[in-house]
Amino acid sequence: MKIKSLFISSAIYALTFTFSFSQSNQGYQVNVNRLTESFNKLKTFSDPNTKGNQRVAFSDYNIEALQWMKSKLNSMGFEAYIDYAGNLIAKRKGLDNTLPPIGFGSHIDCVPNGGHFDGQVGVLGGMEVLEYLEENKITTKHPLEFIVFSNEEGALLGSRALAGELDPDALNVNNASGFTNMEGMDRLGGNSKKVNDMKREKGYFHAFVELHIEQGGILEEKDIEIGVVQGIVGIRWWDVTITGFSNHAGTTPMNKRQDAMLAAAEFTLAVNEIVKSISGTQVGTVGKIQAYPGVPNVVPGKVVLGLEIRDLSNEKMDLLISKIKERSNEIGEHYGTTFSFFSLSANASPALTTTLIQDIIEQKSHDLGYTTLRMPSGAGHDSQDMALLGPIGMIFIPSKGGISHSPEEYSSFEQMANGTNVLLNTILALDMMDKITD
Amino acid sequence: MKIKSLFISSAIYALTFTFSFSQSNQGYQVNVNRLTESFNKLKTFSDPNTKGNQRVAFSDYNIEALQWMKSKLNSMGFEAYIDYAGNLIAKRKGLDNTLPPIGFGSHIDCVPNGGHFDGQVGVLGGMEVLEYLEENKITTKHPLEFIVFSNEEGALLGSRALAGELDPDALNVNNASGFTNMEGMDRLGGNSKKVNDMKREKGYFHAFVELHIEQGGILEEKDIEIGVVQGIVGIRWWDVTITGFSNHAGTTPMNKRQDAMLAAAEFTLAVNEIVKSISGTQVGTVGKIQAYPGVPNVVPGKVVLGLEIRDLSNEKMDLLISKIKERSNEIGEHYGTTFSFFSLSANASPALTTTLIQDIIEQKSHDLGYTTLRMPSGAGHDSQDMALLGPIGMIFIPSKGGISHSPEEYSSFEQMANGTNVLLNTILALDMMDKITD
Repeated sequence: MKIKSLFISSAIYALTFTFSFSQSNQGYQVNVNRLTESFNKLKTFSDPNTKGNQRVAFSDYNIEALQWMKSKLNSMGFEAYIDYAGNLIAKRKGLDNTLPPIGFGSHIDCVPNGGHFDGQVGVLGGMEVLEYLEENKITTKHPLEFIVFSNEEGALLGSRALAGELDPDALNVNNASGFTNMEGMDRLGGNSKKVNDMKREKGYFHAFVELHIEQGGILEEKDIEIGVVQGIVGIRWWDVTITGFSNHAGTTPMNKRQDAMLAAAEFTLAVNEIVKSISGTQVGTVGKIQAYPGVPNVVPGKVVLGLEIRDLSNEKMDLLISKIKERSNEIGEHYGTTFSFFSLSANASPALTTTLIQDIIEQKSHDLGYTTLRMPSGAGHDSQDMALLGPIGMIFIPSKGGISHSPEEYSSFEQMANGTNVLLNTILALDMMDKITD
Repeated sequence: MKIKSLFISSAIYALTFTFSFSQSNQGYQVNVNRLTESFNKLKTFSDPNTKGNQRVAFSDYNIEALQWMKSKLNSMGFEAYIDYAGNLIAKRKGLDNTLPPIGFGSHIDCVPNGGHFDGQVGVLGGMEVLEYLEENKITTKHPLEFIVFSNEEGALLGSRALAGELDPDALNVNNASGFTNMEGMDRLGGNSKKVNDMKREKGYFHAFVELHIEQGGILEEKDIEIGVVQGIVGIRWWDVTITGFSNHAGTTPMNKRQDAMLAAAEFTLAVNEIVKSISGTQVGTVGKIQAYPGVPNVVPGKVVLGLEIRDLSNEKMDLLISKIKERSNEIGEHYGTTFSFFSLSANASPALTTTLIQDIIEQKSHDLGYTTLRMPSGAGHDSQDMALLGPIGMIFIPSKGGISHSPEEYSSFEQMANGTNVLLNTILALDMMDKITD
């Protein structure tokens, strides 16, 4: 749905609101200095001797940062609390608190030696939205709910718990902090024993919007300020086992080998070729590989490699894997090897953002004078679980060099402020709408 | 040199000897039953509950087997002894003990869960040769020296010590027994402290001949009884590092990747293609590979793989690696990656067998009614170190399915006896010669 039809279908205050800003060609503008201060403060909750961020979920840095945020939210007048799963939640009353809330937020945990932007920009932006609304005494019609999700880097722990999608096995998984998810929730101030009681129902949110860094290089390369996320791609993982025959690398003639490594090499190139053979933004990767016995002087009799496919469309992923499997049969035959595919439980379904929210994000960005691009999110985000609770939208800002999960992760304060401005104006526009459907 | 020129260049008794057997169209024949008994006895020095052989160097099984052999040799009248490096040595006097000895032997240690044939056939064959000579009261002109080399599977420990080629670092390397080479030599009855004093000089041997299983499938496939080894191939090992750029596998578009895994795949196929593009028996293998960070959801920024090339000719190996490096530059450029090659110290020079000894092995095999094939040895052997001490020859017998270093390793008693017959007759023919040169 385009913005024009929104004008017709939306209630009268939405129309008025949109009009007023399309006339002034701008919107509400957050306080960049305050955002910068918050950023610099959050950054202190990590090892000061390393450039990268060491705030892995459940670490002392994570606990301390969360307590700082909770205090800050409380000092702003909210009754911020940590839920069972270790999510920090602050609710802000609206004019009509029987209406479903508008949610926003992200996460502050990172991968080991990660960056200071992934997740954190959305949290700092969300805090700034709350501060701006308080400062300017703007009360929305819908209640607002700001969430700092726990252990996003550990398979979206906090958001999965809220969506009732927590895998029971996940509770005993250790993360880089050395604690299990169960221990970690308790460390953050949650209550792991009750984590299964916290599931929210479909329709809980009027809308949920997440601001995030792109973690890719597309916006920077195209010099675009705001990415309007069309959805979070689905992920399919397979372990692919190629079985040949192990043999002495010195005594086995070249034409007598059933070399699983050669078949793996052909396969790796075939995955790349097949994924690129169809137009679109789908990606396919062979990121891990193990040869057996894996020594220089033995022709490998077995190779196990990891295949990952991502796309917004389940149908396209089905098509790609079927082409890949077909090709693997040919490769297997050629090299005297066999292929077997084992689908892993890490698979995730695509989570599409609501077209209407995309339209609003795009329009608000243009009102603020920013260029936009509609794009998929190749990475997973907390929003994909929130999609089970209501309509979602995502706002991307550029990542320098497309680098993420690294000390080199970077977006400028201006870019963060741009994203936060879009978040604020999008929330206010969504607040004007009765019900959001595609 | 062919057998005809041997007739002219050799001494008169060599001529007589060769003639007598080419007339009778056979040669001395060893005792197959005794060889079978010895085989079955040696086999008991391993875990009786496993099909594979557990007699790794320095294990209790290794020590016990060696003591059994020593006793057996002593009971035959030899003063068998264990040298500093743990080699078991039995010398048999000749008619003229000022002449250099004719050496023969192999090893009884195996890889973990290995077979009962690799090395052991040459040792059992050598013992049978001694028994046969004793039984038939045949005294050679040259003294004989039978050697059971220690820890052949551990980089040819015993034979390297004899050749003065022991790498000082090797002494502290642990093998699968859990003992270091130093500890292991002492366990076998050697004296590791004196191991550097035992180097023998070039010219020590009149000739050294080793009987061994092929460890490949060529003889079996071509239905040939005896392999006349042209030499032990040289081995070149490289660690090849491919450097690209690690990136998020979800957010990095296919055309923006510097995927070290794709470059590694192209390289692996290129190695195979280049090695096969030249006629000959050279082999090239990529047997190990490691991707970094090596997880399914990150485009690998680095891959390290193992490249091995083997051939009898240093020049051919030089040519192959130069073609491979040239191709790697093209591949590197195509994928936005760089290749670096690190040559490993495991490299071994080709050890050519003496053509005259090849001729004799071939002639003796034909006299005995066996078919022969001249072929390289793709595997390393103790003989390659003995080549530093005198002219060498090697006799191969077929390996079922070409399988080695496995419980499935197999050659029949008939094949073992054939090989032992050739060993015996070759030793006696070499004994007839004054000096062996190519």
